[in-house]
Amino acid sequence: MKQGKPLILVTNDDGITSRGIRTLVNIMKDIGEVIVVAPDSPQSGMGHAITVGDTLRLEPTSIFGDIKAFECSGTPADCVKMARHYVLKDLRQPDLVVSGINHGSNTSISVLYSGTMSAAIEAAIESVPAIGFSLCDFSIDADFGHTTEYVRKIALKVLEGGLPDGVALNVNFPPKRNESLRGIRVCRQANARWMENFDERYDPNGRRYFWMAGNFVNFDKGEDNDEWAIANNFVSVVPCQFDLTAHHAIRTLNDDWSGLL
Amino acid sequence: MKQGKPLILVTNDDGITSRGIRTLVNIMKDIGEVIVVAPDSPQSGMGHAITVGDTLRLEPTSIFGDIKAFECSGTPADCVKMARHYVLKDLRQPDLVVSGINHGSNTSISVLYSGTMSAAIEAAIESVPAIGFSLCDFSIDADFGHTTEYVRKIALKVLEGGLPDGVALNVNFPPKRNESLRGIRVCRQANARWMENFDERYDPNGRRYFWMAGNFVNFDKGEDNDEWAIANNFVSVVPCQFDLTAHHAIRTLNDDWSGLL
Repeated sequence: MKQGKPLILVTNDDGITSRGIRTLVNIMKDIGEVIVVAPDSPQSGMGHAITVGDTLRLEPTSIFGDIKAFECSGTPADCVKMARHYVLKDLRQPDLVVSGINHGSNTSISVLYSGTMSAAIEAAIESVPAIGFSLCDFSIDADFGHTTEYVRKIALKVLEGGLPDGVALNVNFPPKRNESLRGIRVCRQANARWMENFDERYDPNGRRYFWMAGNFVNFDKGEDNDEWAIANNFVSVVPCQFDLTAHHAIRTLNDDWSGLL
Repeated sequence: MKQGKPLILVTNDDGITSRGIRTLVNIMKDIGEVIVVAPDSPQSGMGHAITVGDTLRLEPTSIFGDIKAFECSGTPADCVKMARHYVLKDLRQPDLVVSGINHGSNTSISVLYSGTMSAAIEAAIESVPAIGFSLCDFSIDADFGHTTEYVRKIALKVLEGGLPDGVALNVNFPPKRNESLRGIRVCRQANARWMENFDERYDPNGRRYFWMAGNFVNFDKGEDNDEWAIANNFVSVVPCQFDLTAHHAIRTLNDDWSGLL
């Protein structure tokens, strides 16, 4: 760890007024100097969206008392970009970016849709160690109490040892259960997905609209994945990267497509 | 290839009225039966966003004449989900999903921000062969003429031979140049990224706002990546996957974190 207090950038996707980010700020302010740049409204499901072709707003807020904080009209990825390249431009850059604590699971395929993780991955693109934290409990009064000691330990570990370049951590917590958490499992993204259905309704003007709904289906029989960890009351830690290349498919395509190339 | 005409779902992120999707529909209708479900407005930079916590609209349109087409208020990923699980629910499912042709590059890191590719990857999640096509030319009157024969050949090849499960192709075309395209290169995502700056302005009410701007910087010295291919007038084909796990980092973390686990 560098000398002195580390600078920690906190963001999320549920918006700056959510309980999850407040929990995260409270943990981080004991570890380092905190700056918050977070969305001014909920951004769930925004994936790795960024604001192009539209304007952005950024306003200071005193919502966290003495902690320097800004609310941004953009996505979680926008928040990281604006924090680093506007708010902290020509200033000291963050030693760590933390995002969350998300109200709801970001295991398995949800990492792709997750605004929480897009902020962490955006930081990783810029070689800043980053962690997304999510609690696998969507209820409005979800209990974050069992997560705090682990959030603190994981953040300290990353500040101390760093992360491989380009890697961000996707940390998920089981919902609060009667038994204590059993520890941490470093694992892979489970092979699971959402099976959607569309709930068809009519508005007061008689125009049709839809709600996306669906069930989460786990096809994965392994014990080395995040879904298994959560089901078995472990904290799941999945190292994530921004290289989407399916490297294993390059040779296959070169062989299969030889006539075309 | 299956017997009979294949069913091809066409979508994009520039919106259903864009020239790029019209070009793609015109190519695909000679290959198979086409159905279009595309955004009713531009969705550039939407990454893998989906619409949760808000309603969706879906309306039929005759914009493509006899071709069955729908415009959707959602993101490209929403369009694929609605096509498969509402429009085609209990009907024959697409043999191929194509997205684009995007007005602008989706090479390298842009794949993460790309609505075009999120549609293709969404299809791959559901094990449907899928291809995102992009032209590395952002100009409004960009020439798509040199892309059509390659789009056709690549689509036919995928219909004929399929793709590895969970893989979608990210196909980028160089802008129209004086020399002909030199062929196709199967390659990896280049190590490059955007270096943002924020253009600060004031609206007529004196409130501050920003435009995100920036430069694309390529750190990659290799010749096996998409940026190299485009610069050298090849069509780049990057097989992409939805597993973000940095598998190489799992062992490192298990070793480094042994005290914590």
